Amino acid sequence: MAVRTVDDKTEPLLSFDELRAQLRAVGEERYHHKHPFHLLMHEGKLSRGQLQAWALNRYYYQSIIPIKDSIILSRGTDPAFRRAWRKRVIDHDGDAASEGGIKRWLKLAEATGLQAEQVQAGTGILPATRFAVNEYLNIVRSRSLLEAVASSLTELFSRDLISLRMEKLRQHYPWLSGGLDYFQARLTQAPEDAKFATEYVYQHAQSRKEQELAIQALRDKCDILWAQLDALYFAYVEPAWPPPGAFRIQAINEEKQ
Amino acid sequence: MAVRTVDDKTEPLLSFDELRAQLRAVGEERYHHKHPFHLLMHEGKLSRGQLQAWALNRYYYQSIIPIKDSIILSRGTDPAFRRAWRKRVIDHDGDAASEGGIKRWLKLAEATGLQAEQVQAGTGILPATRFAVNEYLNIVRSRSLLEAVASSLTELFSRDLISLRMEKLRQHYPWLSGGLDYFQARLTQAPEDAKFATEYVYQHAQSRKEQELAIQALRDKCDILWAQLDALYFAYVEPAWPPPGAFRIQAINEEKQ
Repeated sequence: MAVRTVDDKTEPLLSFDELRAQLRAVGEERYHHKHPFHLLMHEGKLSRGQLQAWALNRYYYQSIIPIKDSIILSRGTDPAFRRAWRKRVIDHDGDAASEGGIKRWLKLAEATGLQAEQVQAGTGILPATRFAVNEYLNIVRSRSLLEAVASSLTELFSRDLISLRMEKLRQHYPWLSGGLDYFQARLTQAPEDAKFATEYVYQHAQSRKEQELAIQALRDKCDILWAQLDALYFAYVEPAWPPPGAFRIQAINEEKQ
Repeated sequence: MAVRTVDDKTEPLLSFDELRAQLRAVGEERYHHKHPFHLLMHEGKLSRGQLQAWALNRYYYQSIIPIKDSIILSRGTDPAFRRAWRKRVIDHDGDAASEGGIKRWLKLAEATGLQAEQVQAGTGILPATRFAVNEYLNIVRSRSLLEAVASSLTELFSRDLISLRMEKLRQHYPWLSGGLDYFQARLTQAPEDAKFATEYVYQHAQSRKEQELAIQALRDKCDILWAQLDALYFAYVEPAWPPPGAFRIQAINEEKQ
């Protein structure tokens, strides 16, 4: 990658390696791999009902990802950028050769015992899930294209989490094993996407200030992921108070599986 | 109020009294007067630090209210509607005669021991607060004007909650008593606003379906208020896990006051 020159009068641009290191530091501090809900999941301590609540709520996030990426597509003025970025929409919505990530997530939800129609209808999703996920749409609509691209960079961290999760889900919840296609596909998709987006951010941030805005967008995206797990933990683990109208774990599912 | 005639072929319009009853039923089910965080507050069981977290986070909500109302103003095509609605912007932003609701909320935050500058900067506000509050902006931007107006109708329920809260704050947290001007003003403002908005919704909903959309907007607004308290409870009461970067209660404030 070409070395960038300083074009900001006050602060030098971060080099590619410095920028990537700062992005990775954001992940170390804020990415949801350390969230207590994930820790319980990986220790095998979630009930089937809690995994249903997770799959149901996370479906809302999955369902807006290609909408988010379509907004980014609509903001790109360079055909080459749009050609590269549209891969993401295809990855999630599918094509003749592949069912796509949304269908794969539905299979995971079905493996927890939910009905696909129920999940797609979104009945019972936590309001806090909607608010956090909708903020992702707000960010890609209202900030610069650079920041919109940078907000995708949680993909820098997702492969390690997904590898661990697949191992732990198979170990602790073997009845879920048939529903892991989503994660299998993301093992290769996410690193490709992260590489493209990291290089894009480095090449298009014209000043240290713009680099800082990109880093902040990643921080905000991490907060969006973290807040979804906070809401799940509060509603379904401790103190286990789902808000009015939200999904309730059925008695039949309450035993640990 | 003139009697409305049925103009929907499938379902009869609700009468004014029926509509108001359904709106009140939403409040009974979902308004945050029953939220455990408020119950603790009214029982005198919150620490000064927990009240700081509440005042800090709620400031973000207060600060966007006149922005929300300005969006509604910008969508009203009738000068008479805008003349009536602009009262709300003045109530919160102030004028030559009145400091306005935002300044009054800052005084409350200062009474908890926070610095006004810290509160206005918004450092440490929970991401979940921002997401929930920003959803209020999403609603008034993206739904019909009728639904935007209807989403304000939590004011139907706020006077009773504010009356109770003022009594309980004075009783349990007397050091806060100098900061209650915000609530004092809302005791008269909120019922005026609720009356106007209820009549507006009744007069402008042209079908039962539109009435149902208005009721749903109120339900969604209740969820926005509820989710803010869920996030406060999770971060500062139980399990008391503020997310990365959020306000931390200082040791000096941790004793119950």
